[in-house]
Amino acid sequence: MASDRTDRRAFLKRGAALAGGLTLGGPALGDDSVAAQSAEAQSQELPDYSTPELIAYGERSPFVTSVRQPVNGRDSPDEHGLVFHIGTPLQDQVGAITPSSLHYFGTTRGSFVPIIDPAEHKLLIHGMVDRELIFTMDELKRFPSVTRLHFIECAGNRSNPRHRTIVESHGMTSCAEWTGVLLRTLLEEAGVQEGGDWIIAEGIEEVKGTSSLPTAKAMDDIIVAYGMNGEPLRPQQGFPLRIVVPGFEGILSVKWLRRIKVVDQFYMTYNDYGHLRRGEADAALSYQIGPKSVITNPSGGQALPGRGFYEVRGLAWSGGGRVSRVEASVDGGRTWFDADIRGAPQPMAHTAFSFNWTWDGSEAVLMSRCTDEIGQVQPTRDQVREHWGIAPGAPFSVTGQDNSIQPWRVERDGSVHNAVV
Amino acid sequence: MASDRTDRRAFLKRGAALAGGLTLGGPALGDDSVAAQSAEAQSQELPDYSTPELIAYGERSPFVTSVRQPVNGRDSPDEHGLVFHIGTPLQDQVGAITPSSLHYFGTTRGSFVPIIDPAEHKLLIHGMVDRELIFTMDELKRFPSVTRLHFIECAGNRSNPRHRTIVESHGMTSCAEWTGVLLRTLLEEAGVQEGGDWIIAEGIEEVKGTSSLPTAKAMDDIIVAYGMNGEPLRPQQGFPLRIVVPGFEGILSVKWLRRIKVVDQFYMTYNDYGHLRRGEADAALSYQIGPKSVITNPSGGQALPGRGFYEVRGLAWSGGGRVSRVEASVDGGRTWFDADIRGAPQPMAHTAFSFNWTWDGSEAVLMSRCTDEIGQVQPTRDQVREHWGIAPGAPFSVTGQDNSIQPWRVERDGSVHNAVV
Repeated sequence: MASDRTDRRAFLKRGAALAGGLTLGGPALGDDSVAAQSAEAQSQELPDYSTPELIAYGERSPFVTSVRQPVNGRDSPDEHGLVFHIGTPLQDQVGAITPSSLHYFGTTRGSFVPIIDPAEHKLLIHGMVDRELIFTMDELKRFPSVTRLHFIECAGNRSNPRHRTIVESHGMTSCAEWTGVLLRTLLEEAGVQEGGDWIIAEGIEEVKGTSSLPTAKAMDDIIVAYGMNGEPLRPQQGFPLRIVVPGFEGILSVKWLRRIKVVDQFYMTYNDYGHLRRGEADAALSYQIGPKSVITNPSGGQALPGRGFYEVRGLAWSGGGRVSRVEASVDGGRTWFDADIRGAPQPMAHTAFSFNWTWDGSEAVLMSRCTDEIGQVQPTRDQVREHWGIAPGAPFSVTGQDNSIQPWRVERDGSVHNAVV
Repeated sequence: MASDRTDRRAFLKRGAALAGGLTLGGPALGDDSVAAQSAEAQSQELPDYSTPELIAYGERSPFVTSVRQPVNGRDSPDEHGLVFHIGTPLQDQVGAITPSSLHYFGTTRGSFVPIIDPAEHKLLIHGMVDRELIFTMDELKRFPSVTRLHFIECAGNRSNPRHRTIVESHGMTSCAEWTGVLLRTLLEEAGVQEGGDWIIAEGIEEVKGTSSLPTAKAMDDIIVAYGMNGEPLRPQQGFPLRIVVPGFEGILSVKWLRRIKVVDQFYMTYNDYGHLRRGEADAALSYQIGPKSVITNPSGGQALPGRGFYEVRGLAWSGGGRVSRVEASVDGGRTWFDADIRGAPQPMAHTAFSFNWTWDGSEAVLMSRCTDEIGQVQPTRDQVREHWGIAPGAPFSVTGQDNSIQPWRVERDGSVHNAVV
């Protein structure tokens, strides 16, 4: 038995020797190489993953440097104290879920993030209810819960010819697995009174960030979330409690949630500033994010190393429900074909797609187009212009969402650019 | 319009005043409270999430302290230099996905984690193939990819009466969304020769951690993974490249992958030590993890604060495919009922389940039982004893997997204990 094992080990050594002439990554195959690498790592002050800290809670490799970026062109607060938004590096993401550390965020006042002791935090439900209720975090966690994948996207996330990269053009959308109690469950405990057709959700932000939402939506699928991607919420995403309003403009998913008031009408609160010039019905209707998609690889600022095969990847999503179809074009929209949808699309969630493409080295314009389960189709830029009555040649500026198709132009040198005009 | 807005703001102020008598968490409702909290945060040296570092890449709240723990009773290497394994705090997890920072890990020698520059890393495929191939990381990322949810579990993850908490009893399993190229795709590029029925996968570890796997499995669903939960792999999980072998014992999912050799037989490599006393057929058969489940909340070491309603939560999984049913018992297995499966079960993936329970304050023993899509049912402890020929009263020790049902006893004082005997 022992000799048998020795023989097998010898085979493996021969196998290694056979490979020795090839350029393999990592340490060389000798037994001393790992110790040498370890010494080298120490000399470069690379992380030591055997420390108690990194055994307790891991970190990413020092070679992984993907980061979020401010995407409004401001690194410091503007005259209103605003520094939103910090965009997700979608070009580096694989799969549909955004890592919590890279989830986009904005705050309604500056970049201040409240740091809340969850043992002290409470949620009040009041207003037009039979029973005013206050919940501690421990109490909320005893309720029946749900875990669902949903995107959150800022209504201002849009393609723009001045935007060079996908972080700038689309970085204000992210997708996470949220866990919490359906707001319906809590409202049923409180007992919504006749006529209580709206709710106001309030966070702990400096400006008391509040949103008006239809009670009908609250009784449908709003989550009072304490978990995100398997952990408690991150502080920048509302720790310890937020609402997630599936498919609606991101600002309505109030963070650091402390209060929900049932009321009888739409109230013009701080977070509703985007709807100032609209009536109640329009405001409510405009909450929902339209069908969208974007190719993440290749995207603006990237470069293809040469002709040949590529898997082109992207993300599609819609506030209208599940993504039912993603089409793609490599000739600027003249011809379209179906892309592969990856995994089972979830309602109001980023859905990854991909297609195989062999680049012949000539100029190409890549596009994607999303259709959702209620039949909504992502519009072209021209269709959006027409909808908003923007004359050809006039500056493109819409006060609502822009969910138009994003074109990326691959130049002959492999460089990729925003082709929005 | 202006007066209208003023009125509405006044209403909100009245709303706030109405709530003023209640004990709300977080800062008080006055305008100065946030500034006060900010000053307090600075005095306590709490994190400032507006720094460039935390804008670039977020971190969890200082109030969230869930950590992995060594689960083999050793904090330092044993006489063989082994410090495996570091267990996942399953009791803190919500949903099916384990956060990457809390994914369990073991290494085959010490807790040394290679730190590899992905620009230098390469994968060699050789042996009984038509074309010996070497891939850089950039080349691998151009291939068609898949993103799939899979658990990885150490074969030694088992219930044990000496284990007080779920980290100790079941912490050596975790579940992540893996992204990479199917090994089949690469092997088809290389061309597997007649008789090449086994592969050996080798990592960069000090001991050249290697695993023997049937080529049939490689041509089915093994992933050469570079992505994990939307990011590159973490160093402790094999950055920049590993294989993920769905449903098979965790040690076979070789990390820091640099070489795959196609061979004609099972080889007894370092990672195969668990199969030393078995023949080739048995060794291969024993790779697959059986149907398992465990209640995560409440679990050993936790305490219920009092009688009343609780949502009981847990995880189920199987190497045999999708979880098709989870049953639960609150009376030590005398009666069973169906638990709710949360979300759509994925093949060879943790599947969250839950059930509603109103605790009446008397002693209770909570259990769960998993059935998978091929009809395998998680066994009782007695069935496992019988299978391994362990006499009643004799020490419980099995050389293979123990996938027996885990009972948690809730005492009258609310404390929860491991009820395995």
